[in-house]
Amino acid sequence: MAKQKPRTLSGFMELLPARQVQFERMAELLRKSYSLYGFTPLDTPIIEASEVLLAKAGGETEKQIYRFSKGDSDLSLRFDLTVPLAKYVALHYADLSFPFRRFQIGKVYRGERAQRGRFREFYQADIDVIGDGKLDIVNEAEIPSIIYQTFTALGLKRFQIRVNNRKLLTGFYQLLHWEHRAGDIMRVVDKLPKIGAEKVGLMLYDEIGMDQDAVGEVTRFISIKGSNQEVLTALEEYRGKSQVFDQGLDELNTVVKYLGAFGVPEENFTVDLTIARGLDYYTGTVYETFMTDHPEIGSICSGGRYDNLAEYYTDKQLPGVGISIGLTRLFYVLEEQGYLNDQLITSPADVLILPMTDDLAPAIGFATRLRSAGVRAQLYTEQKKFKQKMTYADRLGVPFAAFLGEDEIAKNAVSVKDMLSGEQETMPVDQAVERVRAAIRERGNAAPIREQTSD
Amino acid sequence: MAKQKPRTLSGFMELLPARQVQFERMAELLRKSYSLYGFTPLDTPIIEASEVLLAKAGGETEKQIYRFSKGDSDLSLRFDLTVPLAKYVALHYADLSFPFRRFQIGKVYRGERAQRGRFREFYQADIDVIGDGKLDIVNEAEIPSIIYQTFTALGLKRFQIRVNNRKLLTGFYQLLHWEHRAGDIMRVVDKLPKIGAEKVGLMLYDEIGMDQDAVGEVTRFISIKGSNQEVLTALEEYRGKSQVFDQGLDELNTVVKYLGAFGVPEENFTVDLTIARGLDYYTGTVYETFMTDHPEIGSICSGGRYDNLAEYYTDKQLPGVGISIGLTRLFYVLEEQGYLNDQLITSPADVLILPMTDDLAPAIGFATRLRSAGVRAQLYTEQKKFKQKMTYADRLGVPFAAFLGEDEIAKNAVSVKDMLSGEQETMPVDQAVERVRAAIRERGNAAPIREQTSD
Repeated sequence: MAKQKPRTLSGFMELLPARQVQFERMAELLRKSYSLYGFTPLDTPIIEASEVLLAKAGGETEKQIYRFSKGDSDLSLRFDLTVPLAKYVALHYADLSFPFRRFQIGKVYRGERAQRGRFREFYQADIDVIGDGKLDIVNEAEIPSIIYQTFTALGLKRFQIRVNNRKLLTGFYQLLHWEHRAGDIMRVVDKLPKIGAEKVGLMLYDEIGMDQDAVGEVTRFISIKGSNQEVLTALEEYRGKSQVFDQGLDELNTVVKYLGAFGVPEENFTVDLTIARGLDYYTGTVYETFMTDHPEIGSICSGGRYDNLAEYYTDKQLPGVGISIGLTRLFYVLEEQGYLNDQLITSPADVLILPMTDDLAPAIGFATRLRSAGVRAQLYTEQKKFKQKMTYADRLGVPFAAFLGEDEIAKNAVSVKDMLSGEQETMPVDQAVERVRAAIRERGNAAPIREQTSD
Repeated sequence: MAKQKPRTLSGFMELLPARQVQFERMAELLRKSYSLYGFTPLDTPIIEASEVLLAKAGGETEKQIYRFSKGDSDLSLRFDLTVPLAKYVALHYADLSFPFRRFQIGKVYRGERAQRGRFREFYQADIDVIGDGKLDIVNEAEIPSIIYQTFTALGLKRFQIRVNNRKLLTGFYQLLHWEHRAGDIMRVVDKLPKIGAEKVGLMLYDEIGMDQDAVGEVTRFISIKGSNQEVLTALEEYRGKSQVFDQGLDELNTVVKYLGAFGVPEENFTVDLTIARGLDYYTGTVYETFMTDHPEIGSICSGGRYDNLAEYYTDKQLPGVGISIGLTRLFYVLEEQGYLNDQLITSPADVLILPMTDDLAPAIGFATRLRSAGVRAQLYTEQKKFKQKMTYADRLGVPFAAFLGEDEIAKNAVSVKDMLSGEQETMPVDQAVERVRAAIRERGNAAPIREQTSD
């Protein structure tokens, strides 16, 4: 028969089993972390009616969308989890309680140009808090603690959450009488880490048309650096001239004030006046998160406060605050940088059971005992040579192999081999279950990320 | 601004938060159950190249496929998890170890006619064991125990796994000299539960063209009933006339023999000679699973042994055995039949914390304490009247509300209200954390399915 060459589309991540386990472990920790903060899991269709999904979209996004017809229907694959959330909240408004806190980890689709490290199908892991009419500033203050706890749970230590406030920026450009171009100016300032302060100044002068004084003011403003308290103190100089600026500064003060109570160390958090987030969407606190040793990767967790989640679907005013992790890209980067913890158990089973007798009942009984104790057990019953069986155990990376021969069965015992140390010991079945369970518990709690230490 | 009416496509399940939690709990238990048996999680793209995905497909399936172009690419959405598995195993053959045991829980797409209870996007939850060249019969014997443990973990008690063997059937039709129409005959016999024995007989006579004697033999064969041992004994009568039949009978004997060792009670398992599974694909043991009180729903977990998983992609002989649960449909049916356990905690948080002072630091500290103890906590900081806050707590269904006023803070205490009993008590913070944790643990282990008892 003629064969079809098997292949996976480029831009679509498909992992080998051990890597997939590491990915799943990250997703599981995200679910757990988000749940601890009172977010409820949500799942929405990957396909939506195009007129619903694209009610807002335009420009670059629309070009990237997977859009097609089926029968009479014009359909599209979701390109983020925010638009489906807006639809969901507008559609189910009467059945929801506000603030509505949801997390969603799901695949989204963008037909980007194929390129190493760029994905056309990728997971986003989002949380959002949606208010009905109003939403308290404390929700914005809580977000950095969620980011901090989440990455800490994943095993990352050297990262920094950078925070700014859009009202502060809008107010500042009001002071300069450049508020009509605030969005364009922010997009230029956003390039700062890539192109440096000098080029930013040139672009503001050449492209935006600001005069030297205004450019100087912008440069001075985005050069405000220091501890969070030092930055906040420096910003007080601008107070009293713009209501919007003052409100933004109050909000920023509140966010910083509660950091300690929320348990976020100062070293993982910084007020950064150059952060703006490109989108017009954001109206208050904005967040970006950088790996300290890899700023070139860009933000690994971003988001912010917005005023009107579902304006394309409803007259209800639904303000919110949310963050998003591009999980597929993050995983790719962690793998590339050697940050994945290969100490994690990635085998399909904790114990591979090798029966040495024709009657399999004792081996099956042992497997059942292990599984009841929460230990993952696989029976290996293929007719192979002993050496091949051990090669299989090695390749899977199982922590333990267990042998049940006539001697063991007669004594209600089992021979357990620790595949890491190579030590083998015959012990009663009960003891074997406990021994394995304890060892697994210890290794099973390992974090999926392991930073390279320079020392 | 003109609004776009929000809607979700028909045939696409989108759940409200509490229901979604029940669904997630089922998926989580499936992952856990499959993992205990040594299956590794897999994730493959939802989009595949059409020529890869449709290497085999034809007929009804092909019509239902979501197929479209993007740029120069002819793409399709996966319609099951088996074809992507075949592609994966053929593509990554050199990197896998066999037997390769994987589970996958993911969405698949079929553009079926829209109809109540039919879904165009739905989750399948599959496990498969793939051998390289050979695969031991014990793998087929283990499957019923996985089905049994999985549904038991979900909370279902009244279900029955029905098992047959395709070699037995093929061999039997050889005896009748009707092996050339075996597939067609099996498809007729498959209708037995729906149309009854008499009509099956008529169809075999009219449509297949069997003579009265042969029809009589088929009717006699599919009427063999009784305990598993009685059925196996009755089948011995046919032994010695067809090699294929004898092999099938041996396999069936082996599967039944190990049931006890695998811990499957006889009441949940029956040899049923009328089960065939429509697909030509299956070559050995076949499985279907029925809810005892709702046979009209059809099989909720089906599968079987096959000889050649990836024949469209590779010359390698890759036999396997697998089962599949249509999770979305199962969930829909359980909800319709009132089988979902509404005792399960479905709120986003275990504790809703209501600060009663301006300074939120003590409330934030309490939230952090709860979260460190694994308790899901939500801070409620909106400016609302007390009554509105309690209505919110009620609507979310949180098990506990916690109040932190000046009195409590002064004593390092918290007032905890049990939302079910209505009882409220002020206690030290440590004690509150422990109290809540213990209560949650008890309720948190509840099964997602709760059968209606007739007594």
